[in-house]
Amino acid sequence: MPELRKDPIIGRWVIIATSRGLRPKDYQAEKVRYLYQSCPLCPGQEEKTPPEVLAYRQSGSLPNTPGWTLRVVPNKFPALEVEGTLDREGVGLYDRMNGIGAHEVVIETPEHKKALSKFTEKEFENLLWAYRDRILDLRKDTRFRYIMIFKNYGEAAGASLEHSHSQLIALPIIPTAVVEELVGAKSHYEEKERCIFCDIIRQELSDGSRIVQENQEFLAITPFAPKFPFEVWILPKKHASSFDQGQKSQYEALSRIFLDVLRRLNVALKDPPYNFILHSSPLQERAEDYYHWHFEIMPTLTRVAGFEWGTGFYINPTPPEDAARFLREIDLTIESEEIP
Amino acid sequence: MPELRKDPIIGRWVIIATSRGLRPKDYQAEKVRYLYQSCPLCPGQEEKTPPEVLAYRQSGSLPNTPGWTLRVVPNKFPALEVEGTLDREGVGLYDRMNGIGAHEVVIETPEHKKALSKFTEKEFENLLWAYRDRILDLRKDTRFRYIMIFKNYGEAAGASLEHSHSQLIALPIIPTAVVEELVGAKSHYEEKERCIFCDIIRQELSDGSRIVQENQEFLAITPFAPKFPFEVWILPKKHASSFDQGQKSQYEALSRIFLDVLRRLNVALKDPPYNFILHSSPLQERAEDYYHWHFEIMPTLTRVAGFEWGTGFYINPTPPEDAARFLREIDLTIESEEIP
Repeated sequence: MPELRKDPIIGRWVIIATSRGLRPKDYQAEKVRYLYQSCPLCPGQEEKTPPEVLAYRQSGSLPNTPGWTLRVVPNKFPALEVEGTLDREGVGLYDRMNGIGAHEVVIETPEHKKALSKFTEKEFENLLWAYRDRILDLRKDTRFRYIMIFKNYGEAAGASLEHSHSQLIALPIIPTAVVEELVGAKSHYEEKERCIFCDIIRQELSDGSRIVQENQEFLAITPFAPKFPFEVWILPKKHASSFDQGQKSQYEALSRIFLDVLRRLNVALKDPPYNFILHSSPLQERAEDYYHWHFEIMPTLTRVAGFEWGTGFYINPTPPEDAARFLREIDLTIESEEIP
Repeated sequence: MPELRKDPIIGRWVIIATSRGLRPKDYQAEKVRYLYQSCPLCPGQEEKTPPEVLAYRQSGSLPNTPGWTLRVVPNKFPALEVEGTLDREGVGLYDRMNGIGAHEVVIETPEHKKALSKFTEKEFENLLWAYRDRILDLRKDTRFRYIMIFKNYGEAAGASLEHSHSQLIALPIIPTAVVEELVGAKSHYEEKERCIFCDIIRQELSDGSRIVQENQEFLAITPFAPKFPFEVWILPKKHASSFDQGQKSQYEALSRIFLDVLRRLNVALKDPPYNFILHSSPLQERAEDYYHWHFEIMPTLTRVAGFEWGTGFYINPTPPEDAARFLREIDLTIESEEIP
């Protein structure tokens, strides 16, 4: 059973793989499993993954067989385990709990080589519905306090399989980065009785220099103080704390703008590795008034990794106003011929 | 002039290179300048760096000529600029200030190919004295609130030059990661009137399972909740908030244990890329009672980078107790023949 441990100084929880920890030689041997043949996520290979927990499939096709357009399975090498009770323990100064949680893989397409930026709006919208369906299902498990949904695209961004997929981790704790956002947003709300994200949206719409794209329901911006060059946030214009509580029209509008942003990044930065992360409200805590869900998309462009990991201090070599302008000026109508 | 910008939600300051920002094509072209010939940090190439601000040299040798054993120069491509006044500005919700600061390179040895783990204790001690000398000098500049000293070793850890060097950045703000530590340590002190780091040292000495090495003055441990596999912290056993306020014997003892830890990591993980970061008290704030300086050393072993950057959520595949045991069990007496 993995273990969750809390840093006694700053309160950050980390997952420690206690059961079968990697030894020094494992790191030397570690190669990213970038499989081109016998991909375990491809149709016909369903027996290579644990049984599916969700699939969108052709009517008549059987579970765990081909015929799906999207499939969600438990991670075969989970960072957390779903079975068991949530035991907590103090050891002197330290706090630990056993690593209860869900770790799932969202197989976004049956096509091995199809990148997300090549999805149709309908295909992309299905992915958003899958995120929502899994959140709604996992919400029933009261052991969980937070659901993280994220995608690693490309080796440099941490992807270990080429086949297009995203991941979901349900946690019995709230990750530090989310706690920081909640604390900041709550403090702004207590002072001004306004959501800070709504204030940001108003200011960005009025300023304009960091807007990448917008439609009736969503705004895509490069944030004022981005950690990474070409970082883009997509926020619903209307206040809402949880991703999974939207109307159908919202998912359609989000699909359009999200795909548009991914295509712009794809053209501007020539198919860059990237991560995106859904920031949504915690499951148990009440944050409706002051938290505002959004996606953060971060291309992996710089190598100054370890230092910034260690300090939380970021040096960004591209002003977000420049990044937004580059992305705005991309002509997507000529994209399809140029980029494979 | 670079710019410092504050994230309005969580309060994180980032440096934005506004003057000559990188364009999309610069990232595609970006190659790490791993120079083997005409290294700008080698003796005889002194004109390739800005004039030195500190050097330990043979008596009689002239500034900015060969004859040095260690040399500190301003970074030729600084993230912050030292000239100017510290102007602050609010723009609606947002805060910015101009990027005043110092960014220096500590050239640790004249020998191009000599890694830090191959230094003698005396050479390593000189490096610690150089850190101290620079801190004492930069303390005089009241614009600065924090001095970060760090090393990136190896390309994967962000080093852009092969020649052994570390870096110093003096900042008009306190980085988020340090603020978090200060807040946590202060809260512990207010509750218990004890330094949390001193409490950790007592518990680790009594427990023993995470001790890598110790001597009379210092303790090297793998922390209870490490972000990274084989992360090691080196702490002075006696409470002290600032690195630069120690006695001579402390720097000797620190040199011994630091070198011992680097050699163990070097053998266990076969010359891994790594970062180390000095965590010391801010320059203006009074944190003597509750803050406790230390070094954090983080080998770069895993690739799950972007996601953890984005969430502050870490999955560590090696329990720190295992890592400490592997490192303790290294026999350093047979090291020199095996490792180039």
